[in-house]
Amino acid sequence: MTSTTESTRELLLSRIRDIPDYPKPGVLFKDITPLLADPAAFAALTDTLAELCVRHGATKVVGLEARGFILAAPVAVRAGLGFVPVRKAGKLPGATLSQAYELEYGTAEIEIHAGDLSADDRIMVIDDVLATGGTAEASLELIRRAGAEVAGVAVLMELGFLDGRARLEQGLADAPLEALIRV
Amino acid sequence: MTSTTESTRELLLSRIRDIPDYPKPGVLFKDITPLLADPAAFAALTDTLAELCVRHGATKVVGLEARGFILAAPVAVRAGLGFVPVRKAGKLPGATLSQAYELEYGTAEIEIHAGDLSADDRIMVIDDVLATGGTAEASLELIRRAGAEVAGVAVLMELGFLDGRARLEQGLADAPLEALIRV
Repeated sequence: MTSTTESTRELLLSRIRDIPDYPKPGVLFKDITPLLADPAAFAALTDTLAELCVRHGATKVVGLEARGFILAAPVAVRAGLGFVPVRKAGKLPGATLSQAYELEYGTAEIEIHAGDLSADDRIMVIDDVLATGGTAEASLELIRRAGAEVAGVAVLMELGFLDGRARLEQGLADAPLEALIRV
Repeated sequence: MTSTTESTRELLLSRIRDIPDYPKPGVLFKDITPLLADPAAFAALTDTLAELCVRHGATKVVGLEARGFILAAPVAVRAGLGFVPVRKAGKLPGATLSQAYELEYGTAEIEIHAGDLSADDRIMVIDDVLATGGTAEASLELIRRAGAEVAGVAVLMELGFLDGRARLEQGLADAPLEALIRV
């Protein structure tokens, strides 16, 4: 658990909107766009995640396409660290490493520029929501294959009932998984 | 033209990498990922774009999926403004406005949450590259249909030979198109 104050947590939670039956019937979607539209809430979120990057000794921040970019990029700037995108297959123009992962039906693939990370790097992965953990797990694999160390994973919100935390256990080894809010 | 200093412009330009024959033979792709990975360059870019938002009286920042998110989100936080995503069709969970636009072959569609903008808002659209201007033009249309005013469009790089500037003329009306670098 992080040292996020209760008032920050309440502010963030108050700006997350429940959307029933999205993307399919029976699913209650957690929409963070009201939080992003509120400058005070977005700044508090950025500051909190940037502080975690510093505390865990990160040297670079990895953001996961697409919503992860919205949090990870300002966090990198705020923490004074470089930003590295993990993108869906075919979107990065340079020499990449690719990693496939399983979805509910079928598989998907994500990529990183191999040259963006080095053996001296400790990487914090930032995303908005930890759901089943498939993309996050694949990103940890990419980071290790690129030769860097994992500093941790930090998300705004963890959907505990999907148990992504268990899926990340091996990839994290002893690195922390930080979730500002758990639902 | 902005007041971007020549030294900032040189720093930014030095961190943009040419990738030949991407995404297809004969195209020279401008890759901004080295800039994002360099904390000093990314901070200078963020500061410069945030200053433009303030100068042009923006009340919110719109970022275009997906690379536009990487610039627009930190700019919004730096300028103390709310961030509003424009996404590809089907990705936003709330009530949306949709706008189709023409591609080289076929059409595409982008969306915005209708409730994210109001009649009091002046919107700065931030993107990494202005190419043909199709997405930017459609985003200006969305902003007007949502009832808000356009404060301007600001991009890191304008590909002058594709003439996106002409395509945006009508949508911008008297609002500025700011490009930190033109190639």
